[in-house]
Amino acid sequence: MTDPDMTVQDPGERDGDVYALDRRTIADVRDAVEVGDAARLAALLDDLHAADIADLIEQIGGDERQGLVRLYGRAFDGEILSELSEGLREEVIGALAPDILSEAVRDLESDDVVDLIEDLETPTQEAILDILEAPDRVAVEQALSLPEFSAGRLMQREFVVTPRHWTVGHAIDFLRGQAELPEQFYHVILVDPRMKPEGYVTLGKLMSSRREVRLADIAEDSFRSFVMDEDEGDIAYAFNQYHLISAPVVDHDGRLVGVITIDDAMAVLDEEHEEDILRLAGVGDEDITDRTLDIARRRFPWLFVNLVTAILASLVIAQFEQIIGAVVALAVLMPIVASMGGNAGTQTLTVAVRALATRDLTGSNAWRVIRREVVAGLLNGVVFAVLMGGVGYLWFGTAMLGLVIGAAMIINMVVAGLAGTLVPLALERAGVDPALASGAFVTTVTDVIGFFAFLGLASVVLL
Amino acid sequence: MTDPDMTVQDPGERDGDVYALDRRTIADVRDAVEVGDAARLAALLDDLHAADIADLIEQIGGDERQGLVRLYGRAFDGEILSELSEGLREEVIGALAPDILSEAVRDLESDDVVDLIEDLETPTQEAILDILEAPDRVAVEQALSLPEFSAGRLMQREFVVTPRHWTVGHAIDFLRGQAELPEQFYHVILVDPRMKPEGYVTLGKLMSSRREVRLADIAEDSFRSFVMDEDEGDIAYAFNQYHLISAPVVDHDGRLVGVITIDDAMAVLDEEHEEDILRLAGVGDEDITDRTLDIARRRFPWLFVNLVTAILASLVIAQFEQIIGAVVALAVLMPIVASMGGNAGTQTLTVAVRALATRDLTGSNAWRVIRREVVAGLLNGVVFAVLMGGVGYLWFGTAMLGLVIGAAMIINMVVAGLAGTLVPLALERAGVDPALASGAFVTTVTDVIGFFAFLGLASVVLL
Repeated sequence: MTDPDMTVQDPGERDGDVYALDRRTIADVRDAVEVGDAARLAALLDDLHAADIADLIEQIGGDERQGLVRLYGRAFDGEILSELSEGLREEVIGALAPDILSEAVRDLESDDVVDLIEDLETPTQEAILDILEAPDRVAVEQALSLPEFSAGRLMQREFVVTPRHWTVGHAIDFLRGQAELPEQFYHVILVDPRMKPEGYVTLGKLMSSRREVRLADIAEDSFRSFVMDEDEGDIAYAFNQYHLISAPVVDHDGRLVGVITIDDAMAVLDEEHEEDILRLAGVGDEDITDRTLDIARRRFPWLFVNLVTAILASLVIAQFEQIIGAVVALAVLMPIVASMGGNAGTQTLTVAVRALATRDLTGSNAWRVIRREVVAGLLNGVVFAVLMGGVGYLWFGTAMLGLVIGAAMIINMVVAGLAGTLVPLALERAGVDPALASGAFVTTVTDVIGFFAFLGLASVVLL
Repeated sequence: MTDPDMTVQDPGERDGDVYALDRRTIADVRDAVEVGDAARLAALLDDLHAADIADLIEQIGGDERQGLVRLYGRAFDGEILSELSEGLREEVIGALAPDILSEAVRDLESDDVVDLIEDLETPTQEAILDILEAPDRVAVEQALSLPEFSAGRLMQREFVVTPRHWTVGHAIDFLRGQAELPEQFYHVILVDPRMKPEGYVTLGKLMSSRREVRLADIAEDSFRSFVMDEDEGDIAYAFNQYHLISAPVVDHDGRLVGVITIDDAMAVLDEEHEEDILRLAGVGDEDITDRTLDIARRRFPWLFVNLVTAILASLVIAQFEQIIGAVVALAVLMPIVASMGGNAGTQTLTVAVRALATRDLTGSNAWRVIRREVVAGLLNGVVFAVLMGGVGYLWFGTAMLGLVIGAAMIINMVVAGLAGTLVPLALERAGVDPALASGAFVTTVTDVIGFFAFLGLASVVLL
């Protein structure tokens, strides 16, 4: 069995989710806040990682949150602020006593301060900049002057360089002689005399090589560098695609200005995915801690777009009022055709949006993918046409109705395959994020075509 | 301007997407394959990273793929196989000459071989195991005996340990004296005499500390270890949550057996996200390279579920045939109510599924989140009720119809908020992945309630 002194955790010994905060801890923290027991609160929180404390602060109610922040007092450190969701930062910073805030912020590295304050309102941002000492303040202001979501915002300014012609022995002696090295570094970057990075050597390789070996001879193959205004999403993609651990950032003259490490790239990848998933569902940037009114307001635009497109589909139906009045079964069955098309379209478009994001769908294979989706839509369309044609016949006793719904189903599922690929491809080419707008377009197409094909065929065949 | 000798890339100088393979390269590769020009193919591919070559192989057609693999011959290395999407591995392995395959596989580290062959069919798997030398073969077979998606499959078996009582000087001398060190390592792991990991020291910290400092005194705070059968999804979450760079893996007695590094965790995080996005859309594991028939077959089950739920909704409509026959405007307007509910429900459920995945939605805040979603649904419901009520009145000239659609809209959007949170929470508690099944449930609820509320109210008010 596991030694109780160890940090090793055996998932078999715990209930439910391994990394979710357990309800017991949260309940205990709440109790401690309610009775104002600072010692107990400190004891409970000291065991937790800053990221978990931030999660806990996000999960409790607004009043308890203020109480917790005040009661935790001095022990509140800057890393908790960094880990906190953006929507709550203003609130928590407002609840902190000025001296505690100062101490918390001064503990942070400059890139963490940038990340902390970049989305705060101007007065709070300035209050925090005032806390910083002059050199840190300058570094933070410099970073903030760069475009948001750029390499320059993401990078740390601390790194280790050596001239490209050095040997292993030279580099080791240099490192051993430094009074202070960056908190986090995995590579020694080789630079030319004008500070242009030309490669890097991992510390592990440095350790395992003989002193006389030239650094250039043990540099990594996978070396890549980024320009400071390059988009962070592209950088995260490159880290994942090329298995990078860290990479230098250069200015427009190619001079080294910073380093991005994989943990930052991983956080960006995670955010990009979140954005994609939420955008596909017609939700903007939204946090579980946002207030009701904000939530309602943020979801409104896409619901409004959906209302307009739904009215469009209704206008199609309105053209067929006469036959619906005569054959009410059409009103009963028509949502099935639209729904199947909408689902098939959403399947296709999600695969296409995802493949665009991973650069697996490009100009070179677009036609092959479109053809495949259309044929897959046709195949499933035929199967469901037979199924639903049978159901329609059995339900309403008219073979013609079964034929009509079957034919409409095939048409709509082929259209779904076509729209599900063409719409995201067209949006991508137009420079719009395909995750953002595809859904509304595709379901409009499948609704309109679904109703039109079904009711139109019915008019021809049944009238 | 950028020095042409450098690997620095300025995105401003390139057209379109920075990391997508450019069409020109792909076209040139195709030409080379077509005319059988091995030298030109080699020249084109040698500049590319293995991950990009794999992407290229995925993007060209099936015939060209065979041609490329044969023509590239000896230069085809194991890393390309590792990077290739699972659906194509069998095909490409089949196209490789036996001696080239042997060489490619022997170049790989044992954890990459595991990753390469775990999803292959048994004969291909055995053929590759036979290629390996005895110790590698044993390591791979051992890993394959562990559960899929576990820490044990993900870890590498190469790591560096030192006794916990050593000093910096001791550790440096030891590392410098080793004939061979692992390809990739960032930490020295401190172990007790029974090989239980008790902490780790980064190589950077080791470099910057004086020789007499005890390793235990410069060990990282963030130290965490994983048990070998722990789920890889949980591990990826922990790496991202706690900013880990590498972490030891232990067996059930707490003994060190391997190390997981952040690049592997990042790949898992990426796959998990892909799974979530595709599952939310009712698509299983699917690759852009899958064949049409596979695609159609994989999408069939959720389309079938959708057909059943759509028929359920139609059964509700069928209860109101009489009033639809009398007031055909109801048939025209009813899809709007269902569609708005479905969209609002999808927004809510996507936020809930995502928050469950990031452990931000837990038992402690579930009720608060549900209340918020219901109130947000109510707020937007009222706004859209007024809008759509007006449209209904203007369109059909009856105030009553406007009132009915407005009231039905409010009901359905409140229900959407409720179903959008309760369904994923219930599925999660039942141990089902909420991303997998929520969509079908939620839209069934909003369709059924939408049609029932609208047509039911109409029956009461208009008949």
